[in-house]
Amino acid sequence: MPLIGDVGEDALIALFSPRLPTTTSALLGPGDDAAVLSLKGDLVVSSDVLVQDRHFRREWSTAADVGYRAAMQNLADIDAMGAVPVALQVTLAVPPSTDVEWVLEFADGLREACEPLGVGVIGGDISGSREISVSITALGETRGRTPVRRSGARINNVVAVSGPLGAAMAGFHQLENGLRIDSESIDLFLRPQPRIGAGVEACDARATAMMDISDGLVTDLARLALASGIGIAIESARVPIHPSVARVAGQVVASPLDWALTGGEDHHLLATFPPRTELPGGWVPIGLVTREHEGVEVDGKVPTRWGWDHFPRA
Amino acid sequence: MPLIGDVGEDALIALFSPRLPTTTSALLGPGDDAAVLSLKGDLVVSSDVLVQDRHFRREWSTAADVGYRAAMQNLADIDAMGAVPVALQVTLAVPPSTDVEWVLEFADGLREACEPLGVGVIGGDISGSREISVSITALGETRGRTPVRRSGARINNVVAVSGPLGAAMAGFHQLENGLRIDSESIDLFLRPQPRIGAGVEACDARATAMMDISDGLVTDLARLALASGIGIAIESARVPIHPSVARVAGQVVASPLDWALTGGEDHHLLATFPPRTELPGGWVPIGLVTREHEGVEVDGKVPTRWGWDHFPRA
Repeated sequence: MPLIGDVGEDALIALFSPRLPTTTSALLGPGDDAAVLSLKGDLVVSSDVLVQDRHFRREWSTAADVGYRAAMQNLADIDAMGAVPVALQVTLAVPPSTDVEWVLEFADGLREACEPLGVGVIGGDISGSREISVSITALGETRGRTPVRRSGARINNVVAVSGPLGAAMAGFHQLENGLRIDSESIDLFLRPQPRIGAGVEACDARATAMMDISDGLVTDLARLALASGIGIAIESARVPIHPSVARVAGQVVASPLDWALTGGEDHHLLATFPPRTELPGGWVPIGLVTREHEGVEVDGKVPTRWGWDHFPRA
Repeated sequence: MPLIGDVGEDALIALFSPRLPTTTSALLGPGDDAAVLSLKGDLVVSSDVLVQDRHFRREWSTAADVGYRAAMQNLADIDAMGAVPVALQVTLAVPPSTDVEWVLEFADGLREACEPLGVGVIGGDISGSREISVSITALGETRGRTPVRRSGARINNVVAVSGPLGAAMAGFHQLENGLRIDSESIDLFLRPQPRIGAGVEACDARATAMMDISDGLVTDLARLALASGIGIAIESARVPIHPSVARVAGQVVASPLDWALTGGEDHHLLATFPPRTELPGGWVPIGLVTREHEGVEVDGKVPTRWGWDHFPRA
């Protein structure tokens, strides 16, 4: 297989484009100056950048894993507004010394994440660089729903999460330490599996505030509390923990709860609902919005451990 | 001024966001999982990635120049469809050792390009990296117009460009060779000045095909000819050349025409119009769509020099 630097930009795009998923909402797809999309309702848009050796490592992730994860975490952001994802724009910066095959498999990963949801890749750009970075902009439509913001949580609302937490951290811990205790959690770190659609269901159940849990439950609870100007108290015993977490943590003398509270990267959702709401399937209540303070308490105490920062201090 | 790695992601975003331009079309701007935009008509969307030492050099471009150029070349892509740009999503990957000031001035450049057009930055992401890369997704609206594609050129159409070419190349040549002959062309290389709106005017004048000239006139004429399945013949004497080109080329024994034909990066537009169309103001006819061959002829000959490739062979 040739290297990217040997084939040129136009030839690379010609190889790459046929592997991308398509969407019936596209009036015009890749290949022109811009794509054109017909939307039902308002546009909901979110972007993430993933950088080699910060958000992924080539030793751990195949190119398809990188594409899959990049797509899925952006789709989760659209779902977190109660909107329906429709399409992605993808830009890729990649060293000319990279195999063309890497770029084609990256497209395969995008397709594996998007195709089951009817989401297409409608455009983007590709360039040389010294390290791989991927930037994805996800485009969604409101379909008449009012987007659910972070700022709408109200006193006595129920706080809930859309899925079991900690698996991505259990997977990351194994990869970081060269362990192979549990393959499920490694897979979930490399290819997060948020339940896309859980956010739309929460919106329809009148969620008052919602967000994607990307940097760890405690960190993201604090962000939601700050945006809403309220306090949140959760009970740790009610936090759903992915079964793989105990399998891994038990072997390495770590706390499964710590991983579920601070791990991040699972990309399940966090939301608040009015009192006595019947939560949609898969949503688990973990606490309440309090009036007592602005911030987060876990079992009545202010937590001391937090989640990810993409500019960690040295 | 502190370094990015010293302040953390949330603090950096809090400093950065107030400098960004806003748009009245945003129902929800930065700060949530996604932004929400109300569009008039269909969505038109385009993305570009700019990588340090490939698309810009920190020795040549201030941070504001990088932001300005990144914004403007994306806005030109929306205009090239005959659509109206509304908003940008911006992702930035930047080394933690970079001054916070660089990032804030980058935001200033985005604002200087966008604000006069009413375009806002409605969201994005920021991460650490080893080199600076900027990915921009421009979002536009059709406002009831039919987007003008590259594929609609027809036999006997008039081929025209929306502004004088070659200035960016004249600026690039000076910077590359440590010369300071003409500051206007250097400025135009660092901050391209396409006439945003020229594309909408061309659309209203029934342009049959249109595109942004980003990689050089001859290269982009060839792309349009290929997409439309036709041939194009231009007369070099009719190609408008920016006055700064002669000032620079005269001093360095280069051909002004070569720079105008192959230079790229001016971000003016190329379009085809039906015969006898009265061209909108600023559009200059340079040739015709022929039936004789598929490809480009300049003064009756196939040109041998082309434009940019972002994966140049070693």
